[in-house]
Amino acid sequence: MIKSLAAICVAPHLPFVIDEILVDGPGAGEVLVEIAASGLCHTDLTAIEGSNSSCVYPAVLGHEGAGRVIETGPGVSTLRPGDHVIPLYGPECGVCKMCLSRRTNLCWSIKSTRDRGVMPDGSPRFRWQGEPLHHFMGTSTFSRYTVVPEIALCRIREDAPLDTVCLLGCGVTTGVGAALADVREGDNVVVFGLGGIGVNIVQGARIAGAHAIIGVDLHASKAQIARELGMTHYVDASAGRVLEEIRDVCDGGADVAFECTGHVAVMRQALDCCHAGWGTCVLLGVEPRDALMQVPPVAVRYGRTVKGSYFGGVRGRTGLGRIVDLYMDGHIDIDRLVTRRLPFEQINRGFELMVSGESLRSVVSFT
Amino acid sequence: MIKSLAAICVAPHLPFVIDEILVDGPGAGEVLVEIAASGLCHTDLTAIEGSNSSCVYPAVLGHEGAGRVIETGPGVSTLRPGDHVIPLYGPECGVCKMCLSRRTNLCWSIKSTRDRGVMPDGSPRFRWQGEPLHHFMGTSTFSRYTVVPEIALCRIREDAPLDTVCLLGCGVTTGVGAALADVREGDNVVVFGLGGIGVNIVQGARIAGAHAIIGVDLHASKAQIARELGMTHYVDASAGRVLEEIRDVCDGGADVAFECTGHVAVMRQALDCCHAGWGTCVLLGVEPRDALMQVPPVAVRYGRTVKGSYFGGVRGRTGLGRIVDLYMDGHIDIDRLVTRRLPFEQINRGFELMVSGESLRSVVSFT
Repeated sequence: MIKSLAAICVAPHLPFVIDEILVDGPGAGEVLVEIAASGLCHTDLTAIEGSNSSCVYPAVLGHEGAGRVIETGPGVSTLRPGDHVIPLYGPECGVCKMCLSRRTNLCWSIKSTRDRGVMPDGSPRFRWQGEPLHHFMGTSTFSRYTVVPEIALCRIREDAPLDTVCLLGCGVTTGVGAALADVREGDNVVVFGLGGIGVNIVQGARIAGAHAIIGVDLHASKAQIARELGMTHYVDASAGRVLEEIRDVCDGGADVAFECTGHVAVMRQALDCCHAGWGTCVLLGVEPRDALMQVPPVAVRYGRTVKGSYFGGVRGRTGLGRIVDLYMDGHIDIDRLVTRRLPFEQINRGFELMVSGESLRSVVSFT
Repeated sequence: MIKSLAAICVAPHLPFVIDEILVDGPGAGEVLVEIAASGLCHTDLTAIEGSNSSCVYPAVLGHEGAGRVIETGPGVSTLRPGDHVIPLYGPECGVCKMCLSRRTNLCWSIKSTRDRGVMPDGSPRFRWQGEPLHHFMGTSTFSRYTVVPEIALCRIREDAPLDTVCLLGCGVTTGVGAALADVREGDNVVVFGLGGIGVNIVQGARIAGAHAIIGVDLHASKAQIARELGMTHYVDASAGRVLEEIRDVCDGGADVAFECTGHVAVMRQALDCCHAGWGTCVLLGVEPRDALMQVPPVAVRYGRTVKGSYFGGVRGRTGLGRIVDLYMDGHIDIDRLVTRRLPFEQINRGFELMVSGESLRSVVSFT
């Protein structure tokens, strides 16, 4: 058991308590990781705000981190102390029906315990003030030391800077991966919502060879960085001519439209803007609980497809290295996405900046 | 101008008038065809019932026919008198954006005139009692002689019996093609609605090597022919345990589910029964005007896809020959689907049998 600086989410709507917690050593199949840095993501914010049904309080949040292996538990064969790793909220066990299918990157082998805030054996590894503390998303990167199942850690090359590639644990991979999976060379692409996911779809679409890359947002202030990453056209969603403007640029409709806002009305726009015959509407945004998207069946029968994307379709352990390489080779830009760097102790400030919209992505680092 | 026996749909809700009409010779790019036989399809019934927005009255209906070329107009280069042909409500011009995309079998090059009941030059080729008569779906096979654009005719092998392969002009191809496009070997397949499309999805799925083929319907009487064509399990939709029964058979969910009823509530079931990660819901049924399917975005983000199918994804001129071969080689059964054969003059009786549910498919022949 070791002491660890951590941000404790005691209950919804409260700022984190920054304090020392106790972390157990790794059990069988588990790995003790020292986190170097962690991005702050909207999904953490949903837990702070009490709207994330898989957060059990009190908890250690954080799911966009990178660090080094300190110790491995019994039976761990693919990692050793010193390895650089990115924790994965979506594991890759390699032996379940979903992993073996080769048709999805979803692996639900430890989903039931993960969503209850405990390790696969049913217990947590964190204690604070004598009481157990829950894990979150199986990663809990808002603690200097965290324990993660071996199957939920991707080993990465050691020359990749941990305080930047930590963003590959969620937003960057989700966006870049989704674009690489569904954009073909020459495609006209539309991205609804130019936040942390949307701007990464823009750069993924650029790498994939898209022709037009149209960004749609309510806030023109977001257009600047999207332009720098490859956006060719900006459509102001508040102007009310969204579909007409898209169709003008795209000669009849988009080849691929990505929805990153979570609003079901925008999902419908994303479908409606697609070209008949082959246009594909990809849903990434998380809707309010029980919200439903309205789909006109004729739009689908006339060749449009509605599909989704989870973590960019990237298999965490075997596919994330490719995204790291894309960054290290200069194909994708992560540095520009980090609009604020803060010491870990200022993590509450980081979430305030997110809520106020002043920051695209903040990264907190342990010093 | 020649005389032709035809069934005239004067206005909605009236039986056809069986009478002689006048048919103009073929204009540029057009072909005069003598129809040998024609299937009766629910889409014709929607025109009889007044709910088909692309039917302009009075009209000659019929879109599931087969016949022989009698005469070709100026500029026709790919067909000549004597060729056996199947008229296509979905043409294949080969030069429009959609045809050139190779991503869809939709070709909308003559859609605007087709949906107004006229030939591409804006005029009809039929007259009755001194007044023009409209075409329907660009095919109008309920006339012994009909005029069809060259790009809407598929030449077929001459040993194929016209009074059977006429069904390839719509239902058989729609079902078999959809299954061949989306079913992989070993898949668990669900078919909602065991009518003229559904039973052909069953036989297409069998050819594609499906593992389980589950049929869902309200009427157990439809199960018999579906079983003969390859259905392995029947689920009674009225029993209220549809999803549970499907998941029991499929180990978690269907790989592919086809919706052929047009009811949006059933479309939702077709999505819900799909396996997470890769399950694909294919919409074929035509919904009531303005009806919307309700899609939970999370179901899509977790890897399910909603897509559609039109004429089985088969390109009419270049792809239909493969389906004819499948029939001629004994892989698909069409003969069994023809539950009633009638002389053309009894076409009204054929539609009565369809409405009463006594007949899966009737074929009317010119003698």
